Amino acid sequence: MNLIEKWDVFELRLDGPTEGNPFIDVIIGARFSFGCRHIDVDGFYDGKGQYVIRFMPDAEGLWRYKTRSGHVSLDEHAGTFECLPPGKTNHGPLRVHNRFHFAHEDGTRHQSFGTTCYVWNHQGNKLEEQTLKTLANSPFNKIRMCVFPKHYAYNRNEPRYHPFEGSIEDGWDFTRFNPPFWAHLEQRILDLRDLGIEADLILFHPYDRWGYAELDAEVDDRYLTYAVARLSAFRNLWWSFANEYDLMKSKTEADWDRYFKIVQSKDPVQHLRGIHNCRQFYDHGKPWVTHCSIQRPEPSLSKEWREQYGKPVVIDECRYEGNVNKRWGNITALEMVRKFWDGTCSGGYVGHGESYLHPDDVLWWSKGGVLRGKSGPRIQFLRDIVEAGPPNLNPVSIIRGVPTVGVSGEYYLAYTGNSQSASKDIKLPECDEFKIEIIDTWEMKITPLKGIYSGACTIDLPTKPYIALRFVKV
Amino acid sequence: MNLIEKWDVFELRLDGPTEGNPFIDVIIGARFSFGCRHIDVDGFYDGKGQYVIRFMPDAEGLWRYKTRSGHVSLDEHAGTFECLPPGKTNHGPLRVHNRFHFAHEDGTRHQSFGTTCYVWNHQGNKLEEQTLKTLANSPFNKIRMCVFPKHYAYNRNEPRYHPFEGSIEDGWDFTRFNPPFWAHLEQRILDLRDLGIEADLILFHPYDRWGYAELDAEVDDRYLTYAVARLSAFRNLWWSFANEYDLMKSKTEADWDRYFKIVQSKDPVQHLRGIHNCRQFYDHGKPWVTHCSIQRPEPSLSKEWREQYGKPVVIDECRYEGNVNKRWGNITALEMVRKFWDGTCSGGYVGHGESYLHPDDVLWWSKGGVLRGKSGPRIQFLRDIVEAGPPNLNPVSIIRGVPTVGVSGEYYLAYTGNSQSASKDIKLPECDEFKIEIIDTWEMKITPLKGIYSGACTIDLPTKPYIALRFVKV
Repeated sequence: MNLIEKWDVFELRLDGPTEGNPFIDVIIGARFSFGCRHIDVDGFYDGKGQYVIRFMPDAEGLWRYKTRSGHVSLDEHAGTFECLPPGKTNHGPLRVHNRFHFAHEDGTRHQSFGTTCYVWNHQGNKLEEQTLKTLANSPFNKIRMCVFPKHYAYNRNEPRYHPFEGSIEDGWDFTRFNPPFWAHLEQRILDLRDLGIEADLILFHPYDRWGYAELDAEVDDRYLTYAVARLSAFRNLWWSFANEYDLMKSKTEADWDRYFKIVQSKDPVQHLRGIHNCRQFYDHGKPWVTHCSIQRPEPSLSKEWREQYGKPVVIDECRYEGNVNKRWGNITALEMVRKFWDGTCSGGYVGHGESYLHPDDVLWWSKGGVLRGKSGPRIQFLRDIVEAGPPNLNPVSIIRGVPTVGVSGEYYLAYTGNSQSASKDIKLPECDEFKIEIIDTWEMKITPLKGIYSGACTIDLPTKPYIALRFVKV
Repeated sequence: MNLIEKWDVFELRLDGPTEGNPFIDVIIGARFSFGCRHIDVDGFYDGKGQYVIRFMPDAEGLWRYKTRSGHVSLDEHAGTFECLPPGKTNHGPLRVHNRFHFAHEDGTRHQSFGTTCYVWNHQGNKLEEQTLKTLANSPFNKIRMCVFPKHYAYNRNEPRYHPFEGSIEDGWDFTRFNPPFWAHLEQRILDLRDLGIEADLILFHPYDRWGYAELDAEVDDRYLTYAVARLSAFRNLWWSFANEYDLMKSKTEADWDRYFKIVQSKDPVQHLRGIHNCRQFYDHGKPWVTHCSIQRPEPSLSKEWREQYGKPVVIDECRYEGNVNKRWGNITALEMVRKFWDGTCSGGYVGHGESYLHPDDVLWWSKGGVLRGKSGPRIQFLRDIVEAGPPNLNPVSIIRGVPTVGVSGEYYLAYTGNSQSASKDIKLPECDEFKIEIIDTWEMKITPLKGIYSGACTIDLPTKPYIALRFVKV
């Protein structure tokens, strides 16, 4: 009997035809059944006569499957497997939770603290393994990364693998995928999974010299179908339809809508779906978008975006700690940390990036490697504070002009940002009692105030910027 | 023969009637003539039977005058005086210069570096003299100050003088001015003049418990006429029609237009005229407005405001260094200095304020006293740099995304703000050669780069925020 952990990858591998172009000519899929519930999934051609069907079971007990294919050698393979309880660190894929938040399918909270290494997975094993090691000791539980390689400033090196068959010299055959490329990508997604990190996988981006940004509609759609068939069984996956979608001049809004609908209709797991802007937002209110994926310098607007779209707000990019010659990548660690606190206390989920120049152009933001900035430990400090409090923090108003999130009557977290007030007037509930702590977010020091507070009160603060306040009901 | 320095105050004092209400009943003025040029000015009643006419001569040589009044004892007093060259520190009143700048009437440049002490002149001699001493050693050459006393947070003390006759107990007679009040105000304006500081005099403001914010139109107009008669001969005067005019709910836009027109028609010197907003701008494009007087947190928008209104941009208020419990007054010194550089390098003139809490509520922003912040020396450093370069700096574009002002082909001053680029690409003119200095605006250090630069070039920068660049043609 096949045994498989709940939310893990069941994989069926079959031998089949190699003639013609199996990527196009052969259709294969399977129906997975759990009692009276049936789920149809697409399989894919993995090269060398191998056909693969992957599936992520979401219920413990006996599952049955039967393949379907126009090709007789692949049709009507049937079998069963037993789905076992998930392992201790396996909480299932992420879902939108309480409208503005995320949680794993088993209900475990997930406070998103993302970073960005766009093409860390295209840098060869040595650097990629260093990146994984760095991530293991970082505060981050999500990473933005691209399927396609990247052509951009500091990114002129050729990737080890390409997604399609062919070569730079002879050109690419966009009707045939390159299985080693995909196997490598999958390994990296699994490596992230084992570190408890979500792979926010970017399906399209404009930084290109190989033609991947300007594939025609037929190729695009086949690419998405293939990616869903190969990847959707990995539980730590998010679909990011683009980075800076609005810079991809060859695509129309109708194209983006169509991409979303393809993935939405084919992905049996229904992973999170978002799309990242440069200047103009895609309409995050559209029904196939699960959360707002935002590039803007001021995460303090999260409260407004929540109200506008009614969905979780993830500010993937609010500029990066670094020293490159571009506005997007030369903020200080202090400013990066301020943005994290401002966004968090405005009800958003903020993403990190680092772009310090490197003699070999190994900038974290794109290639990974090691973190050299100073924001990391402070982001970990924030994450520890947030995770020590209740989940589902929403914007509340208890201090005029100071962004605050909380659970009414229970807990509040407020952040004074750039300002350095010597005191603040606070409006706590009359009927509850709170202890208050002063948090120096840069020095990472927490100082409890003496006494118990209730109702309207005024508290003294150090005349310093970057101070947070934590209120916990006694 | 009376002798008077050019741009100084000529004063004629006459005895006249005391019966009835001379403030209303008696009209007095004079015609001043220089050759074939004639200027009519209003006089005013100074109490105790004294009538005064003041005049600021603007040409060297013989001036004649003759009074005019409905009252026979004040009519047709004639005389002459000799106007002498101005003293060394006397450059005349300020004028708009080269559309976006200011210069004294003798052509001397004036780089405006203002501060705000709203009612320093209402605090009694001891504190007022301390304020003057502080100003003498400060970087500031303009101060915003109110005619009327102020009722607001940290401002509950009763002023020594009130502008109208009466008392708190018995009420005010808005048909009669209180000459000691005005004499005191004039002394303070003269004290500022002797320190080379412009008095940006605020005629109306909303922070009031005495009724001054809600006088009726007849009283308002008489007040303006009286103020012009008394004060316009002082060369270091700016008319600021209001602080936060849009918070004065009893006044309409037509009222503000009328106030401007009254002063414009009566002021023989034609001092600078502006009006300061809280949220909404008055239309600075109106013809009687000489410059934009702006409250906004981001002075980096100066370039846009210049383009919109075609006038000099003075950001009187972009928040204050301090630690009060309000967003307007709790920014750090670092942020105050950043705003100065950002505004300066965007073509604006930035104003300072300081609001550190004090046991006796002596906050510089309102009452003066001493400066306790850290932005002052850095603002002086900026002023020294600006004054060492050419006047009339206008926005130019030589570094992408970096606000820069300059005189094309001669001189540029750029500011990288919060960012910490390790290098910048610069586009200098091909046919000119420049030396470049790196300026650490917070540490106040200037480091020359080796070599001579021309055309497109890339220069290394320290990976630090708050760095400015100075380019001087060799």
